[in-house]
Amino acid sequence: MNARVLLPWTDIEVPEGVEAAYYDGLGSPPPDLEGVEFYVLPYDRGPEPPKLIGRLPALRVVQALSAGVENLVPLLPEGVRLANGRGLHDLSVAEHALALIHAAQRDLPRWFAQQARGEWVREHTRSLADSRVLLVGYGSIGRAIERQLVAAEAVVTRVASHARPAEDVHGVDELPALLPEAGIVVLVLPDTPATRGLLGAAELAALPEDALVVNVGRGTAIDTDALLAETRTGRLRAALDVVDPEPLPAGHPLWTVPGVVLTPHIAGGSASFYPRAKKLAGEQLRRYVQGEELLNLVPEA
Amino acid sequence: MNARVLLPWTDIEVPEGVEAAYYDGLGSPPPDLEGVEFYVLPYDRGPEPPKLIGRLPALRVVQALSAGVENLVPLLPEGVRLANGRGLHDLSVAEHALALIHAAQRDLPRWFAQQARGEWVREHTRSLADSRVLLVGYGSIGRAIERQLVAAEAVVTRVASHARPAEDVHGVDELPALLPEAGIVVLVLPDTPATRGLLGAAELAALPEDALVVNVGRGTAIDTDALLAETRTGRLRAALDVVDPEPLPAGHPLWTVPGVVLTPHIAGGSASFYPRAKKLAGEQLRRYVQGEELLNLVPEA
Ligand SMILES: NC(=O)c1ccc[n+]([C@@H]2O[C@H](COP(=O)([O-])OP(=O)(O)OC[C@H]3O[C@@H](n4cnc5c(N)ncnc54)[C@H](OP(=O)(O)O)[C@@H]3O)[C@@H](O)[C@H]2O)c1
Ligand SMILES: NC(=O)c1ccc[n+]([C@@H]2O[C@H](COP(=O)([O-])OP(=O)(O)OC[C@H]3O[C@@H](n4cnc5c(N)ncnc54)[C@H](OP(=O)(O)O)[C@@H]3O)[C@@H](O)[C@H]2O)c1
Repeated sequence: MNARVLLPWTDIEVPEGVEAAYYDGLGSPPPDLEGVEFYVLPYDRGPEPPKLIGRLPALRVVQALSAGVENLVPLLPEGVRLANGRGLHDLSVAEHALALIHAAQRDLPRWFAQQARGEWVREHTRSLADSRVLLVGYGSIGRAIERQLVAAEAVVTRVASHARPAEDVHGVDELPALLPEAGIVVLVLPDTPATRGLLGAAELAALPEDALVVNVGRGTAIDTDALLAETRTGRLRAALDVVDPEPLPAGHPLWTVPGVVLTPHIAGGSASFYPRAKKLAGEQLRRYVQGEELLNLVPEA
Repeated sequence: MNARVLLPWTDIEVPEGVEAAYYDGLGSPPPDLEGVEFYVLPYDRGPEPPKLIGRLPALRVVQALSAGVENLVPLLPEGVRLANGRGLHDLSVAEHALALIHAAQRDLPRWFAQQARGEWVREHTRSLADSRVLLVGYGSIGRAIERQLVAAEAVVTRVASHARPAEDVHGVDELPALLPEAGIVVLVLPDTPATRGLLGAAELAALPEDALVVNVGRGTAIDTDALLAETRTGRLRAALDVVDPEPLPAGHPLWTVPGVVLTPHIAGGSASFYPRAKKLAGEQLRRYVQGEELLNLVPEA
């Protein structure tokens, strides 16, 4: 008998022995889902798709396409395994981090405003080359960011939760000594009790004049009010894809501080994600029907 | 006797045996320039600094800080040697090329407009990763651009004036076959009779729907009217630091085409240029007083 699977896209390679139904997370799910054993969750489609997890009696595997799956774990029935989308977003987030850094260093908001006015006025800008970048979070995405920073001839200092001297990684406890040397600090951290408020008033005050604060991890790592205070005076600049709170409410003062660039948590969602996600889904289906160990399994809690 | 030199910045390392005067290209030149043997031209300061070349009777060397020196050659008195600024701008231009590409692929103008309105609306974007980039011009700057594109996991095809199969470089005569495969085409070419109008109506028509045309070389390489036609319909996008004519006149229709990003020829002028330029100037002075061969000498015409 064929294994029944529920997929978000019709162009995932489906191995022999698999019968696919499709649910993109926008319309209604198809009928007759009783037999579905393997559910690849639609990506970034809000709360409806995860609710289906509890309504599939034959379910054995949920494949998520995001790296963070904290919200799914409580929804898993006994015996259903969960695989995450670790790595699928690395390039997308990393290149958005670079986009934010370039935008800030090379004054893109100024040129776009001039363009809208049809105005040709030239001035030299900051650069990324030769900048001293403190990269806080040296995981899967942090490494991808580093490769692009190094190619741009920036000088990178690595920070993770604990020092790993053999890899030239500093521990987060060394931040007080490292911040005063940073022209650019890039945060790419998960939201945990330890990362919340990591950059507060004291840490921001330790950064040199004109430093750029970049965040593509989770907004909670920065104390928003403290950042607001330091950017309003013009002492620091910021380029943020994630903020606290999210969505940033209309009328929040951070929206309009000069020297602050904001994007609405879209670093992970770009075209390069899709082929990578489809390839992972196809490979997982192949492993499933052939009885091989799945990739990216989340350890059972 | 000390060698007298005229320098644009006071923080250039001046070797023993050299007596420096300073002229930043903005105010008036200092008096008593009769003895000046070595003149480091102020960078990007318009037509006045070069005029001084003819008024320095003891002059033996002019050090320019730009790569292109076509405009200086006719001003050189008999026997005065000219060195150029080859390489000083590579990183600056390359990172600006990346800034333009990221801005276009990741929809930065849209997010900045939303930011100005205090609006949090999310949507997925194109990406640079996995994009097929046709890099036309594989010289000093082209190579620096390539390193950053490769780090972002774009797929690069190299084009120069002639094929160099050993280096995997295609000749410009192969463009008709290469353009239909390009998601992004990056031009980084000098202005020569052969490069003028290289991308005309036929070449632009050969690009696939939604392709991005980037230019950080010289504006003359693209037929502006043809690009205007293809971007106005929305079939192509563009991100340009250089245009033809320059400055782009107020009211020119290119200013306001959706999908076109413009910066006013500022790719070369960023902070990373200055330390590199000062280091070159210091090294050249050292070589001069020690009687060593200078770097970057322009062959005499
Ligand atoms: N903006 C977006 O659209 C978007 C998209 C995807 C992901 N993200 C965010 O990016 C985060 C990072 O993703 P990833 O794939 O790179 O994760 P990862 O591979 O798990 O790496 C996380 C890094 O953070 C470090 N870290 C954790 N706690 C820390 C602390 N208290 N102090 C200093 N460093 C700490 C870890 O240190 P060790 O190396 O010592 O373990 C590790 O280097 C995700 O958790 C997610 O929140 C954002
Ligand atoms: N936007 C800015 O602010 C800015 C700043 C600095 C420079 N620039 C521009 O950037 C240009 C490139 O600088 P660079 O330092 O990289 O110069 P470069 O090292 O001399 O390289 C020029 C490249 O262009 C190629 N080329 C020349 N004519 C060609 C043709 N007809 N068709 C195809 N390829 C051709 C050359 O081919 P071969 O390898 O076969 O010789 C070479 O690969 C400069 O000439 C300048 O105009 C712009």
